[in-house]
Amino acid sequence: MHIKGKTIFFDTPPVIAGHAGVAGKKEGEGPLAQDFDAIFEDTTMGQQSYELAESAMLHDAIIRALSDANVSPSEVDFVLSGDLLDQCMGSSFALKDLEIPSIGLYGACSTMALSLSVGSMLIDGGASCVVAGTSSHFCSSERQFRFPLEYGGQRPPSAQWTVTGAGSAVLAQKGSGVKIKAIQIGTITDLGIKDANNMGAAMAPAASRTISDFLKDTNTQPQDYDMILTGDLGYTGSELLYELMQQDYKIKLNGYHKDCGMLIYDLKEQDVNSGGSGCGCSASVLCSHILKNMEQGKLKKVLFVATGALMSPTSNKQGNTIPGIAHAVLLER
Amino acid sequence: MHIKGKTIFFDTPPVIAGHAGVAGKKEGEGPLAQDFDAIFEDTTMGQQSYELAESAMLHDAIIRALSDANVSPSEVDFVLSGDLLDQCMGSSFALKDLEIPSIGLYGACSTMALSLSVGSMLIDGGASCVVAGTSSHFCSSERQFRFPLEYGGQRPPSAQWTVTGAGSAVLAQKGSGVKIKAIQIGTITDLGIKDANNMGAAMAPAASRTISDFLKDTNTQPQDYDMILTGDLGYTGSELLYELMQQDYKIKLNGYHKDCGMLIYDLKEQDVNSGGSGCGCSASVLCSHILKNMEQGKLKKVLFVATGALMSPTSNKQGNTIPGIAHAVLLER
Repeated sequence: MHIKGKTIFFDTPPVIAGHAGVAGKKEGEGPLAQDFDAIFEDTTMGQQSYELAESAMLHDAIIRALSDANVSPSEVDFVLSGDLLDQCMGSSFALKDLEIPSIGLYGACSTMALSLSVGSMLIDGGASCVVAGTSSHFCSSERQFRFPLEYGGQRPPSAQWTVTGAGSAVLAQKGSGVKIKAIQIGTITDLGIKDANNMGAAMAPAASRTISDFLKDTNTQPQDYDMILTGDLGYTGSELLYELMQQDYKIKLNGYHKDCGMLIYDLKEQDVNSGGSGCGCSASVLCSHILKNMEQGKLKKVLFVATGALMSPTSNKQGNTIPGIAHAVLLER
Repeated sequence: MHIKGKTIFFDTPPVIAGHAGVAGKKEGEGPLAQDFDAIFEDTTMGQQSYELAESAMLHDAIIRALSDANVSPSEVDFVLSGDLLDQCMGSSFALKDLEIPSIGLYGACSTMALSLSVGSMLIDGGASCVVAGTSSHFCSSERQFRFPLEYGGQRPPSAQWTVTGAGSAVLAQKGSGVKIKAIQIGTITDLGIKDANNMGAAMAPAASRTISDFLKDTNTQPQDYDMILTGDLGYTGSELLYELMQQDYKIKLNGYHKDCGMLIYDLKEQDVNSGGSGCGCSASVLCSHILKNMEQGKLKKVLFVATGALMSPTSNKQGNTIPGIAHAVLLER
């Protein structure tokens, strides 16, 4: 790898050898239904808690991705995973029977981009096969971050709906899959947003920074990509992203940008307010819909930028701001 | 790097160019007092919450490590950090003003070994400078994992005392410091322990597995090391580790092994039951006492194996087991 500015370029780009995106019932009723590798009508996954249901979904996505890559767990050097739950318990319990050396990550909703980024650097450095993945579950997130489901709390228009879903990708040194040409590890960015019902606003500044840094380092413009794809800014966050890009960098992003949180649901019909969110949002959309479209030649060059809101319920209740981060992954077919 | 078994060997070993370990009042009254780079009598660090106090301590350790390495934040490619708190808020708030691309990790108490391991692979892969670090704070841990301090809960003899402290190391491609010759990323290991007051027992199986795998891959025996150093098994966990190593692998570890959780406190005088614990335990001991002893030639070859208990208060209350993990770092002077 070589570093220019903040972007890491791979001379021999790692390849996505297999991938899978799975989702829950509500996501299966949305516009991407036909692209998910599995839709679980029973989102308890037969488990005794929502947290273990999330783990089971991530486990399922990883097994499907390994199967798609025709790789057995014993051939994998490392699995990189993390999630939104306290102490990343979604991942720990998903991975515990796989018997793969595990690198735990924490990147909130940016985890899919973070795991692909770090995984790519490890492949470039000499690892032969790594697995990246993450998950979220509406019910476990609501409980840990907001209110018990039974409470039936009201949501403001800027609030988002945590996706029940998981995604996983298997990275290898070579092969015929989609290539990871470059990545950028984000820098924590905090413009002082404190409203936990407006995550899009908390994360938009980080997205704007990473995207503009990436465009600068690669000497490219938005129109050079088939799509600049953010993770879960939602409607509110995407509008703010356009404003920030225009205002701070004089870059017009509107028209070249999509957001996984807006792709996964029908915003008019599915009552999700500003759109989908959660680690599983970008993971399930990227690892099914987007990668399938790339493999079918419908998309050739996608800049995937997943954002994370680095908050905890504790930090929020203590009146702290919500720092954001955005990691970027350049995918090319 | 090249991989043999589960161990990653570096042909050009990354170097620890700078390091710092800082600690709180109680730790400053223990046997390692003279080696800490700073001892904070006021462990609130002047902050409004224990969580922000922990962040301030980690921030301090990172700045000291950078200063020791004579490196400015703008010269660092990545900072790798995580902690025990919900959504790793200790690290997020510690790093947010440093303006360094941030890779969030989750490894519970194994985080110092995890950050050094991943950091070493990134340096080996082409990064020029990375910072690794982690922290814990007695008061934030008690509140998030056990009881409010005011409750004055009783502790069983197997319980440990969360260290108030932080440690950080700066890794570079070359220099005259201690070298990282090899690392091993651990595999999640779960023998079914459910007692959150006996973390040592939950983590000992992972330690035993990683140490035996490492000895096998390197074709070495415990006597080939000046010290095999675990993170925070404490007295109970260390005794269990000796038993498991003897029983499962016919390896006598007793006599060659030390544990940061037993080094940091006077177990007879300081009322810490089984010893110290927390991410900051191994981080503060390794990044002060151990690395200083290595630089002074008192220790030449240390196998650092930090263990993590991958539990959350939620997983524990739901009756789940406590999966453990242990990552290894071979340090040589």
